[in-house]
Amino acid sequence: MSHISPLDYARENRERFLDELKELLRIPSISTLSEHREDMERAARFLRDRLSAIGFEAETIAGHGHPLVYGQWLNAPGRPTVLLYGHYDVQPVDPIDLWQTPPFEPDVRDDNIYARGAADDKGQTMTFLHAAESLLHGEGRLPLNLKIIIEGEEECGGAAIKAYVSEHGGRLAADVVQVADSGMYAPGIPTIETGLRGIVYTEIHAQGASHDLHSGLYGGVGPNPLNALAWVIADLKDRKGHIAIPGFYDDVQRPADDVLASWRKLPFDLDAYRAQVGARDLVGMQEFSPLERTWSRPTLDVHGISGGFTGEGAKTVIPAEATAKVSMRLVPDQRAEKVFELFRNRVLELTPPGIDLRVRLIHGDDPVLVPERGPFIDAARQALQQTFGRPAVLARSGGSIPIVGVFKETLGLNTVLMGWGLPDDNLHAPNEKFSLENFYLGIDATVRFWQAVGALAEQGAT
Amino acid sequence: MSHISPLDYARENRERFLDELKELLRIPSISTLSEHREDMERAARFLRDRLSAIGFEAETIAGHGHPLVYGQWLNAPGRPTVLLYGHYDVQPVDPIDLWQTPPFEPDVRDDNIYARGAADDKGQTMTFLHAAESLLHGEGRLPLNLKIIIEGEEECGGAAIKAYVSEHGGRLAADVVQVADSGMYAPGIPTIETGLRGIVYTEIHAQGASHDLHSGLYGGVGPNPLNALAWVIADLKDRKGHIAIPGFYDDVQRPADDVLASWRKLPFDLDAYRAQVGARDLVGMQEFSPLERTWSRPTLDVHGISGGFTGEGAKTVIPAEATAKVSMRLVPDQRAEKVFELFRNRVLELTPPGIDLRVRLIHGDDPVLVPERGPFIDAARQALQQTFGRPAVLARSGGSIPIVGVFKETLGLNTVLMGWGLPDDNLHAPNEKFSLENFYLGIDATVRFWQAVGALAEQGAT
Repeated sequence: MSHISPLDYARENRERFLDELKELLRIPSISTLSEHREDMERAARFLRDRLSAIGFEAETIAGHGHPLVYGQWLNAPGRPTVLLYGHYDVQPVDPIDLWQTPPFEPDVRDDNIYARGAADDKGQTMTFLHAAESLLHGEGRLPLNLKIIIEGEEECGGAAIKAYVSEHGGRLAADVVQVADSGMYAPGIPTIETGLRGIVYTEIHAQGASHDLHSGLYGGVGPNPLNALAWVIADLKDRKGHIAIPGFYDDVQRPADDVLASWRKLPFDLDAYRAQVGARDLVGMQEFSPLERTWSRPTLDVHGISGGFTGEGAKTVIPAEATAKVSMRLVPDQRAEKVFELFRNRVLELTPPGIDLRVRLIHGDDPVLVPERGPFIDAARQALQQTFGRPAVLARSGGSIPIVGVFKETLGLNTVLMGWGLPDDNLHAPNEKFSLENFYLGIDATVRFWQAVGALAEQGAT
Repeated sequence: MSHISPLDYARENRERFLDELKELLRIPSISTLSEHREDMERAARFLRDRLSAIGFEAETIAGHGHPLVYGQWLNAPGRPTVLLYGHYDVQPVDPIDLWQTPPFEPDVRDDNIYARGAADDKGQTMTFLHAAESLLHGEGRLPLNLKIIIEGEEECGGAAIKAYVSEHGGRLAADVVQVADSGMYAPGIPTIETGLRGIVYTEIHAQGASHDLHSGLYGGVGPNPLNALAWVIADLKDRKGHIAIPGFYDDVQRPADDVLASWRKLPFDLDAYRAQVGARDLVGMQEFSPLERTWSRPTLDVHGISGGFTGEGAKTVIPAEATAKVSMRLVPDQRAEKVFELFRNRVLELTPPGIDLRVRLIHGDDPVLVPERGPFIDAARQALQQTFGRPAVLARSGGSIPIVGVFKETLGLNTVLMGWGLPDDNLHAPNEKFSLENFYLGIDATVRFWQAVGALAEQGAT
């Protein structure tokens, strides 16, 4: 078997790698919608089969909601073991009419691939498989041991993987976790993320009358659950972004001064950032910088309100019930369980006349911080420097990757969070995309990172 | 041709009358949804054909939105002419899963007929046709002249009939209008309505960012149009029911003392009323009685809020845009045009940071009062007393029948509003019904009313 450099192998196989990604992107694996259950299984089988094909022992694991995919290659005794994490489920696609091309028909335009899940997280997950194949098929072996677990519920709470990790922690034992479900601070700036916000995602259900009412006949005496939700939601956060839930801010820790100083040194162009958000004005608490607001301050957002009539034209209904989806993003040291209790109590206190409110937790995850120093972070910095030709920055993300906290608490493992997404990738929105340049650079950086981690054993550094 | 009493004819034909109503109820003539355009035309043709069959000159009139149906029988020279009004369009049916039987498959249970439009207004409109048939086929003639106009846009603003009335007023010349699109104060209590609230139905559109945002990445800086609508809506009406729009109450007239005194004499059981509303507590301004609140006080209700994600599970989206449907009910002497301006200005003043608001009028109609005395009202009282065996009460309705104001302003005609609906008919809601007893009593009362009006000519009273 003739050997070629893994990076050369990766370059020569770019087109096939892209075809494989497209094949995965064509599967509409929306985890939150039950009609896609069969698609979830198809996506899991696809990944298992690809892992087997490149030389991993691989299986799908049913039994906890959507299947998990697990694979391992453990033929490097004495070398470190990295546990890889990705997810194959994607967000819903509505509003569908705003997509320029159908969300599950991947389309390459301007050196980007457009599809739901392109960046979050199918494209990034596939960089693991392509990097491993490049090493295995290029050199015939990996420079370290790899375990990989890919879940199908990242977008809907992640119950299955949490249960699996707590029940089968031994099988997942490793030296460090690597997650490619994050992004780069800006195009061309390789990034290691050191903090993630947590989340509490809730539903407030408002019940008014026992049946829908005609607003002519009963408007003025009949309780309106939509007006009620407006009062409650308006009272939870003011127009300046302050969240009016007693105790909510008690555990919020401001980042250390040197961390804040490092953020101030990051290149930041307010106009460009506003353009990226697509908003004339940035909202929220103006006493904090935009990066602080999204990285280290909690927030509260409404995601949708159902009930009543939203079709074209007019219907003069006072609906019997209405529901709002409301989430909060949490920062260290807030805890999801405690915040949900504070939230629920406050909502119930705000109950308007004639209305019954119920508050339900859909999912909750704690925020997480990862150490900014250590041999694995150093290996990642080295790989990123070599691949991108400039030093990596340490940043945080306002998003949540709940499993990072679970790996820390259950397995005692820190995580290296380096990802290839860009701020304008339209995650969770129409026209999600993934940069093809970053796709290929991500494969290269991952190859280099594993080579550097493998070399740590010889240095005795792990 | 052997003559029989019109009331006997009506009794003998009850089953066929019910079958005809069912045939009309099977047509899903939802005016506000454009996919039902063909159903609208079918319903109009059905009514035209029935009018022709019983001896009217009849036609459908296209050209102004959904077709109008017009019919006339003018062979009683020297007798008064009554202009009849009804509508064949119905409200949408959502939430469809709360219907016990499908909304367009009429089902008779417990002496009620259940279907969308049963009471509002197909069942009531058909009483005109059945009363006219009973007189024409029973006695061979009508005791007066009748014109009838039936519109297909009552539930969506009524543009077509308003245009027709203003362009073809002469053709509709009459002595009085009769509308059967109202209800009885309570079961067994025949009712003449003397006041109707007006309406201003609006849409508030909130635009945040130019594209949907991920609440993790941008929560805290990205403007959220759903939170924005909550702030705006919460500020438009407080929890006690007071509408916080400057100038809104300026033109509101409290009813005269004798009118309020007559309302206090109406039988009113608060517990029964609460049960009818289906609410534990009645809301609104407690300094006014429930009847005052619904008959003579304005109100503001949200009917639906679209935007973002309302499916099962969780989607962490900050939508780019969201829309709320908000209506106000108006009372004498408020004017729709003025109130809309006040509303729009207030909404724009309330614009939250980072958000652009647009306010659109969907339709507006002024409130209306009709005189409580006169020969036609007396004829109606006499017919109701004979039919129901007890005196009619004078009441108002919180609902709007915009055309009543148009007939007054454009044709100078007052309206006799007597209808056969009941408070628990579930208008605009799932499981709409119409009492079969009231259907048949309504036919009888209409026959007697026309006989009494015909007799007015001989008394020289018109």
